[in-house]
Amino acid sequence: MLSKTAETGLALPTYDDVLDAHRRIEPHIHRTPVLTSTMINELTGAELFFKCENFQKAGAFKVRGASNAVFGLDEETAARGVATHSSGNHALSLSYAAGRRGIPCTVVMPHTAPQAKKDAVRGYGGRIVECEPSTSSREAVFAEVVAETGAEFVHPYNDPRVIAGQGTCSKELVEDVPGLDAVVAPIGGGGMVSGTCLTLSTIAPDIAIYAAEPEQADDAARSFRAGYIIADDAPETVADGLKVPLKEYTWHFVSRYVSDIQTVSEQEIVDAMKLIWKRMKIVMEPSSAVPLAAILRNPSVYRGKRVGVIITGGNVDLDKLPWMQG
Amino acid sequence: MLSKTAETGLALPTYDDVLDAHRRIEPHIHRTPVLTSTMINELTGAELFFKCENFQKAGAFKVRGASNAVFGLDEETAARGVATHSSGNHALSLSYAAGRRGIPCTVVMPHTAPQAKKDAVRGYGGRIVECEPSTSSREAVFAEVVAETGAEFVHPYNDPRVIAGQGTCSKELVEDVPGLDAVVAPIGGGGMVSGTCLTLSTIAPDIAIYAAEPEQADDAARSFRAGYIIADDAPETVADGLKVPLKEYTWHFVSRYVSDIQTVSEQEIVDAMKLIWKRMKIVMEPSSAVPLAAILRNPSVYRGKRVGVIITGGNVDLDKLPWMQG
Repeated sequence: MLSKTAETGLALPTYDDVLDAHRRIEPHIHRTPVLTSTMINELTGAELFFKCENFQKAGAFKVRGASNAVFGLDEETAARGVATHSSGNHALSLSYAAGRRGIPCTVVMPHTAPQAKKDAVRGYGGRIVECEPSTSSREAVFAEVVAETGAEFVHPYNDPRVIAGQGTCSKELVEDVPGLDAVVAPIGGGGMVSGTCLTLSTIAPDIAIYAAEPEQADDAARSFRAGYIIADDAPETVADGLKVPLKEYTWHFVSRYVSDIQTVSEQEIVDAMKLIWKRMKIVMEPSSAVPLAAILRNPSVYRGKRVGVIITGGNVDLDKLPWMQG
Repeated sequence: MLSKTAETGLALPTYDDVLDAHRRIEPHIHRTPVLTSTMINELTGAELFFKCENFQKAGAFKVRGASNAVFGLDEETAARGVATHSSGNHALSLSYAAGRRGIPCTVVMPHTAPQAKKDAVRGYGGRIVECEPSTSSREAVFAEVVAETGAEFVHPYNDPRVIAGQGTCSKELVEDVPGLDAVVAPIGGGGMVSGTCLTLSTIAPDIAIYAAEPEQADDAARSFRAGYIIADDAPETVADGLKVPLKEYTWHFVSRYVSDIQTVSEQEIVDAMKLIWKRMKIVMEPSSAVPLAAILRNPSVYRGKRVGVIITGGNVDLDKLPWMQG
């Protein structure tokens, strides 16, 4: 059940919602593997356990929250479909989940979005409505879509159903890896970190939670230090999943349960990404390399510890890898 | 025990040697996972089981044969060390295995070999002796090394110890995946294919064995049709692990137990490689994509079948991927 806090008026998800979410989405997601690397352990002096959501359905953890939202709808609401605005993994994930339930999914996306993303959404059966690459156009077009279809809006992260769904990831991680001292996840809008906070603060409150963020999109770190949400307009980073700001639901969890938010440079992100590709032989996206970059930059925080690292997704344009020329 | 065939005079490995090899090398290798892809199954109409030796120690199946050779040496021979000539995965694998046993390993390599390969060999503790990029220089330098050190020569594939070691890969595959109809592996010198033949012809003779080869380095396919070994001088292919010719030990197995050798174009190899990276989120080398390219080119052979596919290795230069410009 969602519980409303007197303090904020938010209908916050509880750990029971995470348990419900896991039962609801299990038929539609992978229980992703946890990988280790002897070489990277030697390099960091820590014991790292990589939770590989790059192997997840639709290529990212976002399918957990999206599936929880889609499969939790009553029949009547579901029949009208779901909608979102995103040009990233949430768009793919919501299209995938809606396709599994057999209901319509509409995604509002700037016409400038990469063709590969559009093709992927359509590949999962999603319908794309294009807008101009501006917030005003996106909001206007999205309002039209909802008015026309009556579709249920599923926000990429500022939604208790989505946060409860993301919380299933660290539930699996602590079930599979006993005795963790810390978990590190990348932070953009804060959906994964919030789900991690919700789960760990309930079932494993001794595990420290760290968030890792690009220096060039460090709005969450600045928010964390300031004590209120700071949103940047259009940050530029190779970790393109991490450009969005915190919102009230994710701020609730991040501000209460995160030990620290560590920032890293663009070069550190690319170096960590190449290191993982090279040594672990897995394809993952720049955002997913931000936690390892943070561990490498802050060795004293992690040395001698057992650390869970969330590899959030693997949807990368193979023709435009960050270390390629031009 | 090795058994000498009257016919050829070769000291052929038997399946008992594969069992011995598995016991010997198990502490030093990974039991690699078998991955599947719903999307690639739909595309091929077959049920494919990818045996992921890209996750193997030293990044390739070659560590199986190299470890079997190294750990099978008596103390006196081992103390003099091992040596080979290779600029590929066998050099890394032999260095790794020798390092685990704590004995010297010398690798003769053309000075033109990529710096990354040299660094990797040294990273595993191997010593590199450089030669000119010609067969005559390589043989002369290698003879000097052996004369100086008394090191045991471990050939990359034409060695019964190496073939028995490679045979452990398909042993694991059939233990983990029941009811296979066929196995497809890439063929260069034929070490992996020979090990597969040795194992499957003994414990699962109903499983058809296919080898897959680049059109531009199709010496094994032409040998197979001609009935004798044809060796090309210097074939050029993106699948750089597959340029070497069959030799008498591997010819023995390939000529007797392989159902067919299928060839594929350079473009088909690159397309299959990108497909695997994109959909399965794994880093593997061009040679490892040749089997999927062959399955995509010969759908009628594989449709409706349960097919094991050997992903032989993951050591690829991330700065020179085959779909990059220049």
